[in-house]
Amino acid sequence: MLNGDGCPSKILAIKDAVEAVHGRWKLQIVLSLGTGGKRFNEISKEVGGITDKMLSKELKALEANKLIQREVIDGFPPVVAYSMTPHGASLQKLMESLYQWGMEHRKEVIGK
Amino acid sequence: MLNGDGCPSKILAIKDAVEAVHGRWKLQIVLSLGTGGKRFNEISKEVGGITDKMLSKELKALEANKLIQREVIDGFPPVVAYSMTPHGASLQKLMESLYQWGMEHRKEVIGK
Repeated sequence: MLNGDGCPSKILAIKDAVEAVHGRWKLQIVLSLGTGGKRFNEISKEVGGITDKMLSKELKALEANKLIQREVIDGFPPVVAYSMTPHGASLQKLMESLYQWGMEHRKEVIGK
Repeated sequence: MLNGDGCPSKILAIKDAVEAVHGRWKLQIVLSLGTGGKRFNEISKEVGGITDKMLSKELKALEANKLIQREVIDGFPPVVAYSMTPHGASLQKLMESLYQWGMEHRKEVIGK
């Protein structure tokens, strides 16, 4: 990859992957849903500091990116639950690679 | 990772990794240097559309992040060359993972 050609379609694919997890909240929402489907308020509690407006915006973006799915569970009142899609679950391996490299990077740059 | 705990230090490491490659130009500069050390103008030619001011800013950031190194080669006039550090070269595996997942993601979301 690094010593291959920097052809546009490769760069585009890498950029799309980085964009899918970039940003202050996406990672934390994905990690929260990684432990199982949750309701809006449950996610909100786990992702400290996020406003309801921001959480609903981020959930919509993750849904549009097919990383999570939204389900209305019948009841009185009906309940909305969010969970990872199979595509979303495929983030597991990528996040592991990001985590490993990130730890190395922190050691290299800030020494811890 | 996904179904593990979303503990702050893990999130921080992932965020640092994403930040190190996020942005319009960093990837293209890294891919350019991935094929061997280069001078400023050579990088500028390969990374289409970048201004000199932006390129020098991005090179400084990549240097501060210890991903590239800057070397002054004696001569008349002296020449400045940039190359990947060993830490920078370690991006190879991460970018491969980003590329693979990015291709899947593009197929899933836009069908190509």
